[in-house]
Amino acid sequence: MFSSVGEENKAKGSTLLYCAPVVSAVCVFVGGMGSENTLVRLLKWVTLFTVLFFIGFIIGWCARPVTTHHEEPDHLQEFLDEIHAENIKQHLRKFTRLPHLAGTQQNLRLAEQIRDEWLAFGLDSAELVWYDVLLSYPNRTHPNYISIVDQHGDEMFNSSLSEPVPEGYEHVTDIVPPYSAFSAQGRPQGDLVYVNYGRTEDFFKLEREMGINCTGKIVIARYGKIFRGNKVKNAVLAGAKGIILYSDPADYCAQGVEPYPAGWNLPGGGAQRGNVLNLNGAGDPLTPGYPAKEYTYRSKLKEGAGLPKIPVHPIGYHDAVHLLKNMGGASPPPDWRGALNVSYRIGPGFTDDFILNKVRMNIHTYNQVTRIYNVIGRIRGAREPDRCVILGGHRDAWVFGAIDPVSGAAVVHETVRAAGALRQRGWRPRRSLIFASWDAEEFGLQGSTEWAEENAIMLQERAVAYINADSAIEGMYTLRVDCTPSLHTLVYDITKLVMSPEEGEERISLYESWHKRDNWTNNRDAPRISKLGSGSDFEAYFIRLGITSGRARYTKNRKTERYSSYPVYHSVYETFELVERFYDPSFQRLEAVGRVRAGLVFRLADALIIPLDCKEYARSLTQYANTIQQLALEHPEAIQRYGVTFEGLFSAVDNFTQAAADFHQRLDKLDTKDVLAVRMLNDQLMYLERAFIDPLGLPGRPFYRHVVFAPSSHNKYAGESFPGIYDALFDIENAADPDRAWDEVKRQISIATVTVNSAANTLHPVA
Amino acid sequence: MFSSVGEENKAKGSTLLYCAPVVSAVCVFVGGMGSENTLVRLLKWVTLFTVLFFIGFIIGWCARPVTTHHEEPDHLQEFLDEIHAENIKQHLRKFTRLPHLAGTQQNLRLAEQIRDEWLAFGLDSAELVWYDVLLSYPNRTHPNYISIVDQHGDEMFNSSLSEPVPEGYEHVTDIVPPYSAFSAQGRPQGDLVYVNYGRTEDFFKLEREMGINCTGKIVIARYGKIFRGNKVKNAVLAGAKGIILYSDPADYCAQGVEPYPAGWNLPGGGAQRGNVLNLNGAGDPLTPGYPAKEYTYRSKLKEGAGLPKIPVHPIGYHDAVHLLKNMGGASPPPDWRGALNVSYRIGPGFTDDFILNKVRMNIHTYNQVTRIYNVIGRIRGAREPDRCVILGGHRDAWVFGAIDPVSGAAVVHETVRAAGALRQRGWRPRRSLIFASWDAEEFGLQGSTEWAEENAIMLQERAVAYINADSAIEGMYTLRVDCTPSLHTLVYDITKLVMSPEEGEERISLYESWHKRDNWTNNRDAPRISKLGSGSDFEAYFIRLGITSGRARYTKNRKTERYSSYPVYHSVYETFELVERFYDPSFQRLEAVGRVRAGLVFRLADALIIPLDCKEYARSLTQYANTIQQLALEHPEAIQRYGVTFEGLFSAVDNFTQAAADFHQRLDKLDTKDVLAVRMLNDQLMYLERAFIDPLGLPGRPFYRHVVFAPSSHNKYAGESFPGIYDALFDIENAADPDRAWDEVKRQISIATVTVNSAANTLHPVA
Repeated sequence: MFSSVGEENKAKGSTLLYCAPVVSAVCVFVGGMGSENTLVRLLKWVTLFTVLFFIGFIIGWCARPVTTHHEEPDHLQEFLDEIHAENIKQHLRKFTRLPHLAGTQQNLRLAEQIRDEWLAFGLDSAELVWYDVLLSYPNRTHPNYISIVDQHGDEMFNSSLSEPVPEGYEHVTDIVPPYSAFSAQGRPQGDLVYVNYGRTEDFFKLEREMGINCTGKIVIARYGKIFRGNKVKNAVLAGAKGIILYSDPADYCAQGVEPYPAGWNLPGGGAQRGNVLNLNGAGDPLTPGYPAKEYTYRSKLKEGAGLPKIPVHPIGYHDAVHLLKNMGGASPPPDWRGALNVSYRIGPGFTDDFILNKVRMNIHTYNQVTRIYNVIGRIRGAREPDRCVILGGHRDAWVFGAIDPVSGAAVVHETVRAAGALRQRGWRPRRSLIFASWDAEEFGLQGSTEWAEENAIMLQERAVAYINADSAIEGMYTLRVDCTPSLHTLVYDITKLVMSPEEGEERISLYESWHKRDNWTNNRDAPRISKLGSGSDFEAYFIRLGITSGRARYTKNRKTERYSSYPVYHSVYETFELVERFYDPSFQRLEAVGRVRAGLVFRLADALIIPLDCKEYARSLTQYANTIQQLALEHPEAIQRYGVTFEGLFSAVDNFTQAAADFHQRLDKLDTKDVLAVRMLNDQLMYLERAFIDPLGLPGRPFYRHVVFAPSSHNKYAGESFPGIYDALFDIENAADPDRAWDEVKRQISIATVTVNSAANTLHPVA
Repeated sequence: MFSSVGEENKAKGSTLLYCAPVVSAVCVFVGGMGSENTLVRLLKWVTLFTVLFFIGFIIGWCARPVTTHHEEPDHLQEFLDEIHAENIKQHLRKFTRLPHLAGTQQNLRLAEQIRDEWLAFGLDSAELVWYDVLLSYPNRTHPNYISIVDQHGDEMFNSSLSEPVPEGYEHVTDIVPPYSAFSAQGRPQGDLVYVNYGRTEDFFKLEREMGINCTGKIVIARYGKIFRGNKVKNAVLAGAKGIILYSDPADYCAQGVEPYPAGWNLPGGGAQRGNVLNLNGAGDPLTPGYPAKEYTYRSKLKEGAGLPKIPVHPIGYHDAVHLLKNMGGASPPPDWRGALNVSYRIGPGFTDDFILNKVRMNIHTYNQVTRIYNVIGRIRGAREPDRCVILGGHRDAWVFGAIDPVSGAAVVHETVRAAGALRQRGWRPRRSLIFASWDAEEFGLQGSTEWAEENAIMLQERAVAYINADSAIEGMYTLRVDCTPSLHTLVYDITKLVMSPEEGEERISLYESWHKRDNWTNNRDAPRISKLGSGSDFEAYFIRLGITSGRARYTKNRKTERYSSYPVYHSVYETFELVERFYDPSFQRLEAVGRVRAGLVFRLADALIIPLDCKEYARSLTQYANTIQQLALEHPEAIQRYGVTFEGLFSAVDNFTQAAADFHQRLDKLDTKDVLAVRMLNDQLMYLERAFIDPLGLPGRPFYRHVVFAPSSHNKYAGESFPGIYDALFDIENAADPDRAWDEVKRQISIATVTVNSAANTLHPVA
């Protein structure tokens, strides 16, 4: 097929050459006319007409292009230029006037508004898609709080029932108080144990080194470092009957910064809301694996659905001081101390005069099946409407959500406006675009996961990429990108087309600014790009379905800013003013992030060849294989004894590396006019990420099916490479049954090997 | 895109019309020449040249087709005509001279021979692909047998160690004696219980009506009705410590037919070999889910891997008489009586004088990881090489295997020869063809399943269809087809192009003959087509991966011939002479079956539009939904009490029906010159079957993932529709926990509903 088209093109050139002498011959022939009789002249005329017509015909025939392929002018720059800081600012202001908690009327109204505006912007369609999922709310008549009670059970201290509302928002009536969504109900009472961040290693230290048994205790953990759901899970595993989460100034106040509203630090009365689920990708806890529609069976809640069995509650540091200040027990290790003026003793329980006091949790939060609404907008692709690129981010917020998620949602809104504007000027992308405003992300990525479940088959077959659009900013320093390796090159290319939003960097690109500020020197001379973890809506798309995914946002300086996340995260202080006064006064940073996200989506949807780089995947696999082998080699005797080898895995990675190199060589030589040949190679690119999916899933985590990437079992926010092997090796020196444990390591290495080999095969020439 | 091409075509026609008046004008213009001065004449000449050239150019431009699509001449009839009875006969003779047990040198030699011949026939490639899988063989020094022992343990009777070898094969040295592959080892001794066919309902009757407890007994079951592995599983569940399988003349001798070699009935010394696994689609028991390569982890054998925990052994009816004739206990129900001259008493144990005798099994069969070899041959597709159609059948045989599998393998060989012949004449199919000679089918579909596991990702993305080619004949009456509903129409179309192989039917098509002999009157006026069950190599392709699949063979008259399978099935008497003398002396039946299989493969690989019928799928789904609802309605009170409803499922089936009708309307209007539009609709057709796959699998059967079809849990050979619901309803009146049982029914209805809705969505217009 390739060669036949090539030959046709060659033939076209030759025919034009052959015409020249024919034309000369005709001239000579006509010149000799005039001395002949009528019949002969008539014959000559007819011949002349015929020859001229024939020449014209031949040239016309040959000049006509043989495929319907047209090189479209590239509208990328036009698209990027259409995205404006000022518009993003307006969207942000509009979307943050009121709270938009999932499952509320106000969030439905916002969904309707967004749908209507998307239609007005020029999308082909925009619709609400609902699911009935399990959400969790505080009881309005029985507020949640933490008490210190004396030996008679009398409350000596009660934690605040709400955060002080920021100026200008006093009229707002429906601010949900800080709570831990999906907490169990109950009023457990007991001695307090301080468990630092509540990480796996913290509990190991408590149990193994300090000899503290948390069974029957209430533990208090500071927020930060890991996803709060993992803290809760660890507390349950340790036997705690309740867990209090608090924000320590060490983790939620930057040095030299005032608390909000004077600065962007967390005030002492502020607290972090958030769900405390361990869903492992299931979405709605009642309908794991299936969309939560009216016809869907709902399971009885039982263990394993990801809901904690114990009460959980978050407090601010003003309240935390009361709980921590009189604690007894051992002194903490130095790195367990926060920044409060207390001793950070471990407990259990209080000291001296307070020794008879206990802590009591009063938690009345309830779970309820509630209707949620995604907004799904589309622009139909011009050439390959059955291929789609998704830009999705959530709309629901704990309160005003000016950073999380509206800084992202405003950017999506502006991207939709820009795409609609181009659309109205006659442009259509090659492939279809899908824009999504997800609901109930804060309750466990539910809107995005349910939609993925409802459309799993189609997404598996047709989705080219998913770009996530949660919070667009979490700091004021530089760009942060987490994505699958095949997107690395595209990310670099796009960031070279966007200007740095930093003052004094008017003439350099975002790429240069980013490179200067966060150089990935341990790997290559390029800006740092990280692995995808979880904690946002790409999870079902990337880790369950194996769709090429990435995210980008503006972030803090990882070297100098050691606080967790951004200080007012999930508090009432995430207001429009927070962003406008501190994070991005000119809205240039949000514009830059918006252009990066938009540029990724544009190129993925519109480029003739899907701009994915298999060689970057190969490079990353090599690195991950080395890393995991190093981890195993920390147990040299066991490696020897059990005959554990990574040889097969390295050989598979080599196969993949070779296949990727060959694939890109073929891609370079591709006849881009050959419609089917282009489609076939594009299919190989589109399905590359899919090749890493194991339908059997990771052990105990059936919806985490990506063999190369999964959220860490110890911190959902972090990504782990070769997670099956990693988890098998974790804490293996303390395994109850080492034979079995090392057998599992071997099994996981084998699964990784099979999968990487299989992925390599998908890059080979077809058939 | 659709409309723009349409407009282009319209424009072409108009341009041609506009040319006519221009030509007339030129004629008038030329006619007026002659009275002018030279300059004016020259100008007129130039104008004339220009106009003529322009006309020619325009017409040439317009006449040129704008796509590279060419309507190829149809080579189907040429392909079918190329398949010859005489060649099939020669292949059959050649492949049945020696035994070809999986894992033996002889079967490797045959693989090499087939690979070499396929290459010589003209395939683009043919190669051996190996796996190291768990097989099972009798111990050569400790033969397996069954004894009757007296109270001293002395053997009073021993069953035969082998079958009498048929004339002409006395020189063959490596005939494996009858055994049950993967039997446990052991020498259990005990009282015998006769369990009829060993079906679930037989054990229910024994336990619930007759009050017979099989715990600690050795059971004897007659072969027939269901897959032998299910008999063994039932015996294990009933507590038996061994199971003897025998062939009763009622099931293995047709009336009025002589035993082989005088006729085609099973001789008294013949016995049926076969594996007794319950793999549920896992393939190699040591590597479930992954290909059994050198780098693959092998699990420790444990319960659940599908291997029976008890000894199993097959015997012929001459031996069975000795075991059955002196049995005591209750008289059997009338339909439990076979055709031997014994009482068929149930036991336990012997009667009267023999009451102290016991039965002892002596089983020394061992399991061994063994290398097996598939042969994989390919013809690269001309237009869509990344789409493939697979024709696969197994090569390994218990002994000579003239029916199972060589009647099928010979047909595959002839099909490859025919495809190679066309290939050498310049033909290539539109899509790629893959031919497979699977190994170790008899040991649990291992060759085909391991290859499917190694290529799962690619098959999921690229396989259009899988046509199975096991035994091509099992009777002398008419055609039998089992396939997925979307293939119904194609099967009918192809059988109309093939002539009936029956004497006296020289002028009618196979379709007409089949229709006359096996009319599917309960459903529609057409020949009967059945659901796919399992027991052959399509299993992994259809039930695990969701690839459109079908099989065809010649069969007996189901109304008059009541014996199970064909009498000498899996015995040493499956010789070339058996087929040549009795089953198909002219080899016309094998030729007809060969042409049906080849025709299916040809059309699926070569038709511009993949010839699948979504409306037939809709029709079948309606029927299955009705059937399963009927089954549930047998429990009207429970349906009421638990609020079980099929409304959602019927609504989903309606959605599917509408989507299928709309899809085919769009298909009818498709511009077949639009390369991408054709590809997109073809993708929807190709992926239709995939839409019924639930990655979570059926309860307890993770490799059975098709929501609409699975092998029955009670008989692997039979197909069950909506198997999840069926199994949930099975014996529900005796459920220990009815609440939980009916909850599971509701859950399964919900899964079916979600899946059918999702499949309907895949047929909607893209994007």
